Amino acid sequence: MTTTSVPAEGAARKVTVLGLGDMGSAIARTFVEHGFRTTVWNRTASKSAPLVEAGATAAATAAEAVAASPLVVICLLDGTAVDEVLASVDTAVAGKVLVNVTSGSPAQARAYERWVGERGAQYIDGKVMGDPPDVGKPHVVFPFSGSRAAYEAHEPTLRVLGGVAYHGDDAGAAAVEFMAQVAMGFELLIGFLHTLKLVQAEGVDVTEFTDRLAASVAAYPPLLTSMAEAVKSGEYRPDLGSLDVQAALMDDLISHRESVGVESVRMREVKTLMTHRIAEGHGDQGFSSLFELLGK
Amino acid sequence: MTTTSVPAEGAARKVTVLGLGDMGSAIARTFVEHGFRTTVWNRTASKSAPLVEAGATAAATAAEAVAASPLVVICLLDGTAVDEVLASVDTAVAGKVLVNVTSGSPAQARAYERWVGERGAQYIDGKVMGDPPDVGKPHVVFPFSGSRAAYEAHEPTLRVLGGVAYHGDDAGAAAVEFMAQVAMGFELLIGFLHTLKLVQAEGVDVTEFTDRLAASVAAYPPLLTSMAEAVKSGEYRPDLGSLDVQAALMDDLISHRESVGVESVRMREVKTLMTHRIAEGHGDQGFSSLFELLGK
Ligand SMILES: NC(=O)c1ccc[n+]([C@@H]2O[C@H](COP(=O)([O-])OP(=O)(O)OC[C@H]3O[C@@H](n4cnc5c(N)ncnc54)[C@H](OP(=O)(O)O)[C@@H]3O)[C@@H](O)[C@H]2O)c1
Ligand SMILES: NC(=O)c1ccc[n+]([C@@H]2O[C@H](COP(=O)([O-])OP(=O)(O)OC[C@H]3O[C@@H](n4cnc5c(N)ncnc54)[C@H](OP(=O)(O)O)[C@@H]3O)[C@@H](O)[C@H]2O)c1
Repeated sequence: MTTTSVPAEGAARKVTVLGLGDMGSAIARTFVEHGFRTTVWNRTASKSAPLVEAGATAAATAAEAVAASPLVVICLLDGTAVDEVLASVDTAVAGKVLVNVTSGSPAQARAYERWVGERGAQYIDGKVMGDPPDVGKPHVVFPFSGSRAAYEAHEPTLRVLGGVAYHGDDAGAAAVEFMAQVAMGFELLIGFLHTLKLVQAEGVDVTEFTDRLAASVAAYPPLLTSMAEAVKSGEYRPDLGSLDVQAALMDDLISHRESVGVESVRMREVKTLMTHRIAEGHGDQGFSSLFELLGK
Repeated sequence: MTTTSVPAEGAARKVTVLGLGDMGSAIARTFVEHGFRTTVWNRTASKSAPLVEAGATAAATAAEAVAASPLVVICLLDGTAVDEVLASVDTAVAGKVLVNVTSGSPAQARAYERWVGERGAQYIDGKVMGDPPDVGKPHVVFPFSGSRAAYEAHEPTLRVLGGVAYHGDDAGAAAVEFMAQVAMGFELLIGFLHTLKLVQAEGVDVTEFTDRLAASVAAYPPLLTSMAEAVKSGEYRPDLGSLDVQAALMDDLISHRESVGVESVRMREVKTLMTHRIAEGHGDQGFSSLFELLGK
């Protein structure tokens, strides 16, 4: 298996992409632009036309596409799509390196690794953190995990896609990174939309407010760093003031939101956690100390 | 009232601070350091000692402290504390300008303005966005609102405290800004702590993860700006990809969190909103379009 995973001269410049949605097409186009002999396949065949025009070769079936290259990048909508496409190629994967950058969970990645291994192939799980038009630029981050040998052999190829990072040989590790980062993004963005609802209800211009808010958000990274250090060490300094002082404003904050019809699920949670932590005698600690209560 | 609010020469350099907790002390100290004749008062009298040593004058009662200066800055724990202290000074406020920087709601600010106005004084509401040790530096932002005449007369004094901004003559406006910004901060930080719980449960180093996350968070401000523009215009482009693509990963995201015992209240909310929006025929729009469903 090791010998087949290290591509021979010439073969090193061949790559297959399965899935030509917005993201798969951007990936395939990037390979073509970097001079790779790129074979593409998509369930809806018409989507390959612009790539063929750019220089790619369209395969009639997923199995044919897999046969064409030692390295196969899979970029489909979700796990259901990956399951269907893998079932259709089945033992055609033998001797290949499969890099699946479809969004999904750590458990799915580990299951694909098993399935692929059983068919004599190697598996690298990857995730895409960025937008299709930015693929190929270093700020689009691709976390990868799984077979170290396969990753090291193909890293030069994968690097053309953006900023790559290897998270270890647990195939689920890239998905952990992705799920955590995506959730944090959704967390921030849904909180932001509720905040816009609040200021709009109060007659404040949402774009002017956002200019000010964006400046505040830009100042958070160092606070996140210091809070992570507090969590790691268990030494919770009064980061945004003490919990005693922070908690004193939660009732006003919640009743204000409710007075303008804005939800306050997180604010009520924060208040409950602060109250609990203060009752335990930790009112002199900071927000980061709420970590101790999570999952309890 | 207008004449009493514009301080005479000499009187302009006098200021009173009521409340010498961490924040009130930092404010009083900043005034002393800028050469103001600063009178201070605190319920627990002993807290004035370090300020007296630095050059402030301690008053025996809040009413005496108010009598000493044309401008009175109030910085107490919360609305309950402000109510008690204002009740104790009552008509002693006549002819003064009161600047209350205690955290609180817009409704409280408007009520204080009425109360103060009925006693022949002027009211400016303010809020502190920053830490006590940073008072006096420009990155500590003080939104103010209320009497424009009083604000303009005293802005040079208030400016010694940090970055000041006047949000209009609705006394509640500074509190709206504060409540919105604080809630967004808590939203981000509690989401962050849950995210740390997730990565920790998966065996990932929390500080190394946070280094990567901090880099992602630093990239959000431009996205917030474009999302606010989408909300304002009602033109919702596919900001993080289309809702169709984003929604496809929510089930995996939620089941992954649940598999490691991490809550997913916001993720379930986001999924419900996405599903709803897609069912309405807007699956080609972006995350920002969820705004349309909030409060419904
Ligand atoms: N777009 C983004 O901004 C972005 C950003 C980061 C990550 N991603 C991730 O990248 C992946 C692809 O996203 P995308 O934007 O390319 O999505 P997309 O434009 O909707 O494309 C979806 C792709 O999946 C295929 N597909 C869906 N169900 C299938 C099935 N049952 N069998 C075979 N093929 C199937 C589609 O084929 P048809 O053409 O035949 O329908 C198409 O090739 C997703 O996991 C997404 O989360 C996307
Ligand atoms: N600390 C921060 O990081 C921070 C940041 C932004 C905004 N703020 C805001 O600044 C304000 C003050 O915070 P802080 O950090 O100075 O709080 P603190 O250190 O706990 O001080 C609280 C102050 O309120 C007084 N007080 C409380 N209840 C009172 C009552 N019933 N009657 C009279 N005085 C009373 C206390 O007097 P005693 O000394 O007699 O108890 C003390 O002077 C709060 O609204 C807070 O939200 C603080």
